[in-house]
Amino acid sequence: MKTIGFIGVGVMGRPMVKNLLQAGYAVAVYSRTKSKLTDFLAETGVQWCDTAAECAAGRDAVITMVGYPQDVEQVYFGENGILSAAREGAYLIDMTTTDPKLAVRIAAEGKARGLHVLDAPVSGGDTGAKNATLSIMVGGEEADFAACLPLFQAMGRQIVYEGPVGAGQHTKMANQIAIAGTIAGVCEALFYAERGGLDPERLLASISKGAAGSWQMENLMPKMVKEDYAPGFFLKHFIKDMKIAQAQGGALPVLERVCAMYGDLEAEGMGDLGTQALIRYYRGE
Amino acid sequence: MKTIGFIGVGVMGRPMVKNLLQAGYAVAVYSRTKSKLTDFLAETGVQWCDTAAECAAGRDAVITMVGYPQDVEQVYFGENGILSAAREGAYLIDMTTTDPKLAVRIAAEGKARGLHVLDAPVSGGDTGAKNATLSIMVGGEEADFAACLPLFQAMGRQIVYEGPVGAGQHTKMANQIAIAGTIAGVCEALFYAERGGLDPERLLASISKGAAGSWQMENLMPKMVKEDYAPGFFLKHFIKDMKIAQAQGGALPVLERVCAMYGDLEAEGMGDLGTQALIRYYRGE
Repeated sequence: MKTIGFIGVGVMGRPMVKNLLQAGYAVAVYSRTKSKLTDFLAETGVQWCDTAAECAAGRDAVITMVGYPQDVEQVYFGENGILSAAREGAYLIDMTTTDPKLAVRIAAEGKARGLHVLDAPVSGGDTGAKNATLSIMVGGEEADFAACLPLFQAMGRQIVYEGPVGAGQHTKMANQIAIAGTIAGVCEALFYAERGGLDPERLLASISKGAAGSWQMENLMPKMVKEDYAPGFFLKHFIKDMKIAQAQGGALPVLERVCAMYGDLEAEGMGDLGTQALIRYYRGE
Repeated sequence: MKTIGFIGVGVMGRPMVKNLLQAGYAVAVYSRTKSKLTDFLAETGVQWCDTAAECAAGRDAVITMVGYPQDVEQVYFGENGILSAAREGAYLIDMTTTDPKLAVRIAAEGKARGLHVLDAPVSGGDTGAKNATLSIMVGGEEADFAACLPLFQAMGRQIVYEGPVGAGQHTKMANQIAIAGTIAGVCEALFYAERGGLDPERLLASISKGAAGSWQMENLMPKMVKEDYAPGFFLKHFIKDMKIAQAQGGALPVLERVCAMYGDLEAEGMGDLGTQALIRYYRGE
């Protein structure tokens, strides 16, 4: 596997492309707005393609890292899309967090055309993308996973084969569902503590290493205390993920409640804040 | 400080008394049901008292570790209670998890009688009690905290002065509130994953070290997977704590939802299971 078409070159895609280049792959890129990539193209010298189809045609592998499920649909199934252009035997890897049912649809259509399709969403954010330390959760045929492993290893560190097509997306959904409950618990604990007049530093020292401890508490509670709402992960993207999870059926009452609270914040124009801004819902800000 | 009256000698109290004895304190005990303590009294040789008042009279410090807020009220304010019997200048330390408002009431009544009152609930469970590694969250006068520190150090490791009377209880409540959201997130993630046909071991390997990770996930998700509901912390006691937290006012919608789910399980006779049994609510068991 030598040549890669990379579609969707945003905050995550740019460092991922750089890591692929560094690992020796020949990368061509396509993204919705070329003008945003002037510096990136000059710096890296990667080949620009005018359409997703052109980016996919003839490549050994095609990676997509776009925004919403409808963007994924567009680049795979739309006019000048990937599926109609990819060469037989190519690997198509969707690394966007998207609907598991969409992953299944792409795989079915790909299989009919002699293509190998994997769903491989990530966690670890732009820092993980930069440092090639992403967690990558992969669904699809196990042989296809094995064939693409070196490519994943160029971008991530914790790379797990989760099961058949869709299992990568399902794993990412489970990850987001756990985060939803946890961050709400952290917010409610902090809000309660603030009302009770506790010192938040002492609170964190007292409870973060025990049974109440979590990544969310360690990393986001200090930001909530400092009212630092700069995005590590955009609130609007978290809402997208939670809605996908809910659309799979099965009652998840806490997720539903948390998603509704985030929805209120987004409606008030806070979609570009980080997920820790949930504390503002409680504080009534 | 040499002599201690210890009231409430259950699963937590027994190892705490042993650790105090080991540290050189002279301990007298009172508990509701003497017959449960036959072996313990023989083994340790501690002095038995027939009432809370007798246990408190003349001691340098009195520690209470009972069950519910009404038990705390009874041993402090009831007939043959602590407040009427303790000698002037004694330290009264309630280590039960109870209502912060009750802590304030005990402190006010104690102060009027020339007593020093601290609220000092713990976390760490019976294992922490045995190994003298409890986290102890202390509220009250800071000088009283300093005077009792050696005593706390005989029983715990992470000992934090949280602020004025009630601050220990408030900190413990914040701890329980954070746990409620977190364990619900873990249950919903696992329930979702089971529905989606994921392998739970791979799921845990994929998500437990990242942004979704928590003590609850690491320690209780494996038990949920194995359907091991043996209590580390009784579900019925968690309900007690959540109800106290809710009674302080302030909207905590996720806590409320989680408490209601646990209430359903308790109503079905599962109160003596561990908190990880929340997964049974989702599985419809």
